Amino acid sequence: MTLTIYCLNGPNLNLLGTREPAIYGKGTLEDLKALSEQAAAGVKAQLVFRQSNQEGDLVDWVQEARTKASAVVINAGGYTHTSVALHDALKVLTIPVVEVHLSNPGIREEFRHKSLVSPAASGLIAGFGAYGYRLAIEAAAQLAEQRSN
Amino acid sequence: MTLTIYCLNGPNLNLLGTREPAIYGKGTLEDLKALSEQAAAGVKAQLVFRQSNQEGDLVDWVQEARTKASAVVINAGGYTHTSVALHDALKVLTIPVVEVHLSNPGIREEFRHKSLVSPAASGLIAGFGAYGYRLAIEAAAQLAEQRSN
Amino acid sequence: MTLTIYCLNGPNLNLLGTREPAIYGKGTLEDLKALSEQAAAGVKAQLVFRQSNQEGDLVDWVQEARTKASAVVINAGGYTHTSVALHDALKVLTIPVVEVHLSNPGIREEFRHKSLVSPAASGLIAGFGAYGYRLAIEAAAQLAEQRSN
Amino acid sequence: MTLTIYCLNGPNLNLLGTREPAIYGKGTLEDLKALSEQAAAGVKAQLVFRQSNQEGDLVDWVQEARTKASAVVINAGGYTHTSVALHDALKVLTIPVVEVHLSNPGIREEFRHKSLVSPAASGLIAGFGAYGYRLAIEAAAQLAEQRSN
Amino acid sequence: MTLTIYCLNGPNLNLLGTREPAIYGKGTLEDLKALSEQAAAGVKAQLVFRQSNQEGDLVDWVQEARTKASAVVINAGGYTHTSVALHDALKVLTIPVVEVHLSNPGIREEFRHKSLVSPAASGLIAGFGAYGYRLAIEAAAQLAEQRSN
Amino acid sequence: MTLTIYCLNGPNLNLLGTREPAIYGKGTLEDLKALSEQAAAGVKAQLVFRQSNQEGDLVDWVQEARTKASAVVINAGGYTHTSVALHDALKVLTIPVVEVHLSNPGIREEFRHKSLVSPAASGLIAGFGAYGYRLAIEAAAQLAEQRSN
Amino acid sequence: MTLTIYCLNGPNLNLLGTREPAIYGKGTLEDLKALSEQAAAGVKAQLVFRQSNQEGDLVDWVQEARTKASAVVINAGGYTHTSVALHDALKVLTIPVVEVHLSNPGIREEFRHKSLVSPAASGLIAGFGAYGYRLAIEAAAQLAEQRSN
Amino acid sequence: MTLTIYCLNGPNLNLLGTREPAIYGKGTLEDLKALSEQAAAGVKAQLVFRQSNQEGDLVDWVQEARTKASAVVINAGGYTHTSVALHDALKVLTIPVVEVHLSNPGIREEFRHKSLVSPAASGLIAGFGAYGYRLAIEAAAQLAEQRSN
Amino acid sequence: MTLTIYCLNGPNLNLLGTREPAIYGKGTLEDLKALSEQAAAGVKAQLVFRQSNQEGDLVDWVQEARTKASAVVINAGGYTHTSVALHDALKVLTIPVVEVHLSNPGIREEFRHKSLVSPAASGLIAGFGAYGYRLAIEAAAQLAEQRSN
Amino acid sequence: MTLTIYCLNGPNLNLLGTREPAIYGKGTLEDLKALSEQAAAGVKAQLVFRQSNQEGDLVDWVQEARTKASAVVINAGGYTHTSVALHDALKVLTIPVVEVHLSNPGIREEFRHKSLVSPAASGLIAGFGAYGYRLAIEAAAQLAEQRSN
Amino acid sequence: MTLTIYCLNGPNLNLLGTREPAIYGKGTLEDLKALSEQAAAGVKAQLVFRQSNQEGDLVDWVQEARTKASAVVINAGGYTHTSVALHDALKVLTIPVVEVHLSNPGIREEFRHKSLVSPAASGLIAGFGAYGYRLAIEAAAQLAEQRSN
Amino acid sequence: MTLTIYCLNGPNLNLLGTREPAIYGKGTLEDLKALSEQAAAGVKAQLVFRQSNQEGDLVDWVQEARTKASAVVINAGGYTHTSVALHDALKVLTIPVVEVHLSNPGIREEFRHKSLVSPAASGLIAGFGAYGYRLAIEAAAQLAEQRSN
Repeated sequence: MTLTIYCLNGPNLNLLGTREPAIYGKGTLEDLKALSEQAAAGVKAQLVFRQSNQEGDLVDWVQEARTKASAVVINAGGYTHTSVALHDALKVLTIPVVEVHLSNPGIREEFRHKSLVSPAASGLIAGFGAYGYRLAIEAAAQLAEQRSN
Repeated sequence: MTLTIYCLNGPNLNLLGTREPAIYGKGTLEDLKALSEQAAAGVKAQLVFRQSNQEGDLVDWVQEARTKASAVVINAGGYTHTSVALHDALKVLTIPVVEVHLSNPGIREEFRHKSLVSPAASGLIAGFGAYGYRLAIEAAAQLAEQRSN
Repeated sequence: MTLTIYCLNGPNLNLLGTREPAIYGKGTLEDLKALSEQAAAGVKAQLVFRQSNQEGDLVDWVQEARTKASAVVINAGGYTHTSVALHDALKVLTIPVVEVHLSNPGIREEFRHKSLVSPAASGLIAGFGAYGYRLAIEAAAQLAEQRSN
Repeated sequence: MTLTIYCLNGPNLNLLGTREPAIYGKGTLEDLKALSEQAAAGVKAQLVFRQSNQEGDLVDWVQEARTKASAVVINAGGYTHTSVALHDALKVLTIPVVEVHLSNPGIREEFRHKSLVSPAASGLIAGFGAYGYRLAIEAAAQLAEQRSN
Repeated sequence: MTLTIYCLNGPNLNLLGTREPAIYGKGTLEDLKALSEQAAAGVKAQLVFRQSNQEGDLVDWVQEARTKASAVVINAGGYTHTSVALHDALKVLTIPVVEVHLSNPGIREEFRHKSLVSPAASGLIAGFGAYGYRLAIEAAAQLAEQRSN
Repeated sequence: MTLTIYCLNGPNLNLLGTREPAIYGKGTLEDLKALSEQAAAGVKAQLVFRQSNQEGDLVDWVQEARTKASAVVINAGGYTHTSVALHDALKVLTIPVVEVHLSNPGIREEFRHKSLVSPAASGLIAGFGAYGYRLAIEAAAQLAEQRSN
Repeated sequence: MTLTIYCLNGPNLNLLGTREPAIYGKGTLEDLKALSEQAAAGVKAQLVFRQSNQEGDLVDWVQEARTKASAVVINAGGYTHTSVALHDALKVLTIPVVEVHLSNPGIREEFRHKSLVSPAASGLIAGFGAYGYRLAIEAAAQLAEQRSN
Repeated sequence: MTLTIYCLNGPNLNLLGTREPAIYGKGTLEDLKALSEQAAAGVKAQLVFRQSNQEGDLVDWVQEARTKASAVVINAGGYTHTSVALHDALKVLTIPVVEVHLSNPGIREEFRHKSLVSPAASGLIAGFGAYGYRLAIEAAAQLAEQRSN
Repeated sequence: MTLTIYCLNGPNLNLLGTREPAIYGKGTLEDLKALSEQAAAGVKAQLVFRQSNQEGDLVDWVQEARTKASAVVINAGGYTHTSVALHDALKVLTIPVVEVHLSNPGIREEFRHKSLVSPAASGLIAGFGAYGYRLAIEAAAQLAEQRSN
Repeated sequence: MTLTIYCLNGPNLNLLGTREPAIYGKGTLEDLKALSEQAAAGVKAQLVFRQSNQEGDLVDWVQEARTKASAVVINAGGYTHTSVALHDALKVLTIPVVEVHLSNPGIREEFRHKSLVSPAASGLIAGFGAYGYRLAIEAAAQLAEQRSN
Repeated sequence: MTLTIYCLNGPNLNLLGTREPAIYGKGTLEDLKALSEQAAAGVKAQLVFRQSNQEGDLVDWVQEARTKASAVVINAGGYTHTSVALHDALKVLTIPVVEVHLSNPGIREEFRHKSLVSPAASGLIAGFGAYGYRLAIEAAAQLAEQRSN
Repeated sequence: MTLTIYCLNGPNLNLLGTREPAIYGKGTLEDLKALSEQAAAGVKAQLVFRQSNQEGDLVDWVQEARTKASAVVINAGGYTHTSVALHDALKVLTIPVVEVHLSNPGIREEFRHKSLVSPAASGLIAGFGAYGYRLAIEAAAQLAEQRSN
């Protein structure tokens, strides 16, 4: 059976390439999507790649993934640290969830240290820039396959 | 005059029955709505029952209730603990507000201990599962009637 | 079988009507008892209504309720926030416990924010004044009946 | 070249005049808009004046301002204190940002003390009520002109 | 009219003279009572002098003082720092309350720094040993007389 | 000279065998008393074994022990963490005090971490269940004998 | 009636132009005074402009302003964060007080986050450099005029 | 030998009668001085009564008192809570020091809770308004006489 | 079967008799070993008694005990409070672990209050000096025997 | 040029397969080494795989890696959270450092939340069990190759 | 060129020899000055040695040193821990600043732990009593000479 | 008698010259040793200069110094902030201990602010780079000589 991986991106990730390039790199969201699709293809998975600045959209998509996806890769951006709603939505899932961040939030501002996504995630990849998405998609596929066996 | 009670539900309550049944019970949001309408009928009140995953929708509905409702029963889900915006919206109301929770947030994770809804609510009912909605609606009706006398 | 509900009241509740009426209302403890008995009658339950200023009395009564009552409604007053002994006594009970407060302690002084009763209670009703006792007794009866089925 | 100033307003500011007049004054959002347009005219700037209860709308508008505005005046309301997403969006801007508040959040409830807007703003004006918008628009125009020289 | 002053003493004050004489002096509770009666006589007041190790007794006596005394002088001993119940009882009083301590709790162990008696007291006298009781009784008489004028 | 050991037990220990057997074991207070008397006999000491739910009773008994006992073994239950009065009473003693707990409070809920008994005790034995009473009585006897030499 | 505005400056502001120009700009205190006088002239107010490194001087001048000034603009420098004495002096004033800072203290070192001036000020302007003085003087004049009507 | 008592007053006490009369009473500093001199006369002591807004003046006067006074009564106003320098100066004294406050700082704003004067004082009198000065002077005289015996 | 008890001692315990005798007693590590061996003989157990200043040695010995010992008695000295590695090693054991301290760390410096050994230990004995080792070894033997039955 | 990757493992990782298999899986350190060598071979890198319970060994090996390795993959176990020494050693490296954990420390005990390795690492992979080592080695190789170009 | 070293001393240092000799030694400020001049002579520097109890004086002298001195040695006494004003003044200097304390503040009362002088100083010497001044002056001279080369 | 000074260096100091030269300077550990020997020669003392990355080695050497050295100069590197074991070892010494740091830890990362070495040291020298070792050795010699007189 073909895997379907939801790759969900939170607020301001549509500004990639523009926003603090020293931290986030020069690639755009389009580049990130292309790289992610390539990685998905490499593990023979279908990719659903989305971005929104709305907290509620992310909650909706996570709820949708519950019945439609084999795994979720999520970079919740600023909502990572404040959204109890997103935390609750992710908690409902029984499929693997991989949390990914371009930089390592644990070594940035104090208000980025607590993740409400982590307690609902299978694993965490942080600090590798765009390359971390490839690792995350491979890991998500690997976990999803284990589970389906 | 017939009372109108707004019963507003926050993020992930549309997943009731699916999400951690040990905590939230097996009933769905539909069941909760039916039970609430029954309780409203019992106190001869009209019920407006809504759910959204959007923080802004809840703020909008609370603002709408200001002129259209006799009382508000609100389970703000994850926004209970983070939404200053919702707090500010509720503060404007002069009608009774009853805060309700299926479980008792005060004895769950640390990040659920502080409620920004409470300082703007008349009273609080927590930990009784779906049955708490019936208590909340009765209490809301009671308070609204007192006020209209 | 007839239900027996213990309604236990902690320190200073004997001063109701005298103490800060803006917060606690004008009714006396006698009024509260009458109202509670009416509510108990409404759910066909027998009511044992007591008040004491002594922490140990409350512990004793909770222990007594273990074998004699179907449910406990408790307003521990100032001991709510300091009594580990009361917490431990309530923890032993297997019958329903409903915590009730006239005002909502969560929005008053800092030293009233932590409840040692809550982790041992089925549910919490706060902020509705004397009317909250009626809700609490109905809820206690409801929970006790469920359990006996 | 004509300046364009985005004046963005967060949740509940549409209730001005209704909400706690002792704190926020009696003027409505319409009055505030009129006053702001007058101030903008006084510095020969065009004004884009918007309000939303949605966190995501504010993020979107800030992103839009990046290419369309000369400066941003922002009163993020309740999101000031919780929105990492808004913080991240503002950080991307290279045009001046002026943070404005009707009251001084630093002397209100504890949860209003930390501003996530401030670290991304050029300056802060707080506590002057509606009159503060005039100061903010003048300051924004002044900073934008300096930068264009 | 003759004044009646209740001088209430909390736990372990019956051990005066025995307990850490370096801190509390060599006088016994009897000596303290004699000294207090002498001071009361000096201001032509009747003295009711009591001691108990029971938190509830102190609550009871404070409630009794509400109708029988002109003023209360209270050294709540260890309950000063832990008794919300005593705090609540004192809050009901409309007669003057003078808090007295033999030593200055504010410069002893951390757990003696917070007083729940202070927010319900007219004034505080601490650190003067037995002599502080004389000052407290004089102050209580003075305040009671002012009020009766 | 025969040793006299006071073994004092605080609130809820009368419920042993009933209360959370996984933590406290299946033995009752009677069993604990029997075991303790056996241990006392083994070290040729007389045992005074008491339990009360009243904080003041414990304070009274500790004061009584000052002149009548050779050593005190104390399990203050919930008062361990809240009673400044008990702390003060124990501080007066010049005979050995052994603090004992069935479980290790330091690894249970946060509110059980601070002991007000410890700073007034010679030593601490925790986590060994009923067997810890035997160790405590032997230790108390040993310390009392050293002192009397 | 002509307005008189006291513009009071605290420690180290006499070093402007020398001290961390990246933060405070290159202008000197003389420049700041000239700019302030120009702004005062623009609103037809008289300006009293002073600077001192002594906490007591600022307290004295604030007390003097009570009877001689229509408004106070104050940049208390390092005393902003530590001076309870200055806080108390400002609290006595019934004329408008505008707090001004060259940079935004809220985003600098931790010890600059708390302002003891704010709770005694009508409004706050921070982060605009010398230009903020012009805004502050205009605001002070505006508030003073409102009050005199 | 005649006693000499230094009565030292800190910042803003020169504004008594003007500043927040609800808290501090209507009497002026002159009234307070008169009352204090009367009290000093009553105990046959000479009074040196001074006030300053300068932290350093208080330090100087405390140092002067070391050789010239029999006791110090000090109301350090706002410096009570911030002045390590004053704390150190008082620590050097071997004569009695009585700390006095018109109101009880322990129940006002958080930043008034910690006293740096207390650890260097014999005793504390707070909350009795101007009358507290009389108590303080009598206590100071009493302590000084004890010491000289 | 003969029991084997590992008695492991952490840093600086080799200095016993030299280091702060007021706290640790005059006996040396040799004395402690002799006393421990005597206690072990009393319960017919073999004793392996070791001391090291190296954190890693303690981790190694705990791992070794996993297959070679019937129980572990451990005084981890300074590593008690800082070693997550030791905590993790102890967690793996399925044999009884008894934590022992010569003094009671809970009443010494703040940095000795948290024990990382406790959450991995069956019980705790503290404050009895060298005599505590005898109690610990007896307890360890008792627990090991229970388990082997 | 062939890459050399140091894979360094801290305390208790030699117990893999034995220690809390629910968290760490059933594989042993040997299995982990085999899996890691396979992953290294897949990216044509040489692997140096070591484990020690000694903090100093890890510091030594990190220093050695400075001149001998192309990248470091490190799972510092319990030292992750306490070792400033290891933090300082890693800071000196100019080659890529990948932090890896079998479980996600951020959602376990409080004392595992702070990582002193993270601020010195290029990226972080956590929560994927043994599979995370494969990801880490691939990431390390990728980063090392980028750098050498 | 001859070096000029400013040696500035804060509040209460004029009481040396009198104040807590156990901590500060028996030498007077005169002795300290003589010792300092000797040390200055030893490094062929001119010494300006001053003391004041006034915070503002220290700020003034630090500002004066900016143009007249080659280095500053400063013991700010109680102002070390509270003076943001002094911190700001020192920050402006480009000459070396050596912070000196007779005792080590880091191991005294909590309120002496934070130094606002340190972040503006080249180095710190503490705990050596008067001898520390000699070290400080030598260090200041050494740093000043390096800079002038 | 010739003095013997132990100069003990903790983890990563063997990397001097390589590690963050902006902070630690360009000199190597060899240079530091040479400089230290020169300083020792200047005060006619013998120097034992050692470095280790192992916490236990430092504990061993401090214990060795107890009988073999006249004074200890110690830079414990990262162990300064975490080693209770080292703290305990130093506490046993009766010879002078001088704590030295190349930079001033008090103004670096939060986790370097607390020193466990300071409470066991005679004095502290920090922030002077390698030159601080010369000051430390001179101070150690001076203190040792005083003690031997």
